[in-house]
Amino acid sequence: MKIGVLGTGSAGQTVGAKLVAMGHDVMMGARSADNEKVLAFAQRTGGGAGTFADAARHGDLVLNCTRGDTSLGMLSTLAGELDGKILIDVANPLDFSKGFPPHLSVSNTDSLAEQIQRALPGVFVVKSLNTVNAAVMIEPSRVPGPHSVFVSGNDKRAKGKVMDFLRTLGWQSIIDLGDITSARAAEQLLPLWVRLYGVLGTEIFNIAVMKADK
Amino acid sequence: MKIGVLGTGSAGQTVGAKLVAMGHDVMMGARSADNEKVLAFAQRTGGGAGTFADAARHGDLVLNCTRGDTSLGMLSTLAGELDGKILIDVANPLDFSKGFPPHLSVSNTDSLAEQIQRALPGVFVVKSLNTVNAAVMIEPSRVPGPHSVFVSGNDKRAKGKVMDFLRTLGWQSIIDLGDITSARAAEQLLPLWVRLYGVLGTEIFNIAVMKADK
Repeated sequence: MKIGVLGTGSAGQTVGAKLVAMGHDVMMGARSADNEKVLAFAQRTGGGAGTFADAARHGDLVLNCTRGDTSLGMLSTLAGELDGKILIDVANPLDFSKGFPPHLSVSNTDSLAEQIQRALPGVFVVKSLNTVNAAVMIEPSRVPGPHSVFVSGNDKRAKGKVMDFLRTLGWQSIIDLGDITSARAAEQLLPLWVRLYGVLGTEIFNIAVMKADK
Repeated sequence: MKIGVLGTGSAGQTVGAKLVAMGHDVMMGARSADNEKVLAFAQRTGGGAGTFADAARHGDLVLNCTRGDTSLGMLSTLAGELDGKILIDVANPLDFSKGFPPHLSVSNTDSLAEQIQRALPGVFVVKSLNTVNAAVMIEPSRVPGPHSVFVSGNDKRAKGKVMDFLRTLGWQSIIDLGDITSARAAEQLLPLWVRLYGVLGTEIFNIAVMKADK
């Protein structure tokens, strides 16, 4: 599959490399085509490198792996490249301006995913994978047990395709939380993630949703 | 143990009845001592009934099981009865004024538990049990697997006593998230709880924190 990965940070590098290794035709996008990190990605993995617009145009599926505080501004310029496509929004609107632990720059009555969907009404935005570390995203088996990942989005067909994609990464427990407003719930998990990271001393963890059998 | 249960709703009734059955000396507190629900509790369980102030005075341990939108105003009047005691804050600041799903009336950079701690600086406030339904609070074994409950509070000794108390209810995986500011993380789980309740079709569920063995 042709996949665009927007963002050159830890999530983009980890997910991008895995997708290349799985045989996908991946292009990573950065602010500029000669960005050091995007060139290093191409050299290291054999994937492609370009601008955000290049990668968005390349992908039939596009992943937003940019930092939450820059995602909206960058994506708002890419309607022409993204319209009609599925955009998996992996970003979290973390605000470190008041130190650690971060708070959320948008939450409770709105979410980053909703902001992106409003800015790009022609794109099928699906929030997912934002609740785990990049290493867990691409290899969920590193965490034992039937732990869970969530999807939120307005379009059932798009969510179904994202769920199929997640299964190819090894995800087994995939929970559809509802329309794009349910991304608020997934993004509001981040404060717990940050606290658990401090308590557990590893970023290789996740939550499992357990319910009574009946 | 002498326990005060503040609030006559589902959480107060369920937790109060269980604590009486466990042999504790329980008094439920309501807005007035002749409140129908508190009298019914006393008749049904053999526990005591009184005002919020009566129950707060009675308990060596006190549980706030009132509705989140009324907790702070009620508790703010009880410093005389609560100072020096442990208050387990089970409430959630859910706001249904804009319909379903509810949002949080305080979140992200503050929490209900912190508001209560600021109003009652002489009380050892510990946030806990707010992330599960009342039936799961008192009988965690109804949900399979090693699912988790959280504690947040400023005083280590008070949190230790609450953890001991939780163990008597059957809780095995109890995670200390940190000081009272970490209650933000526990309260921000509620939006996910509400979505999962809709998806799973039962309130008998919880999350388990799973991490890599290494």
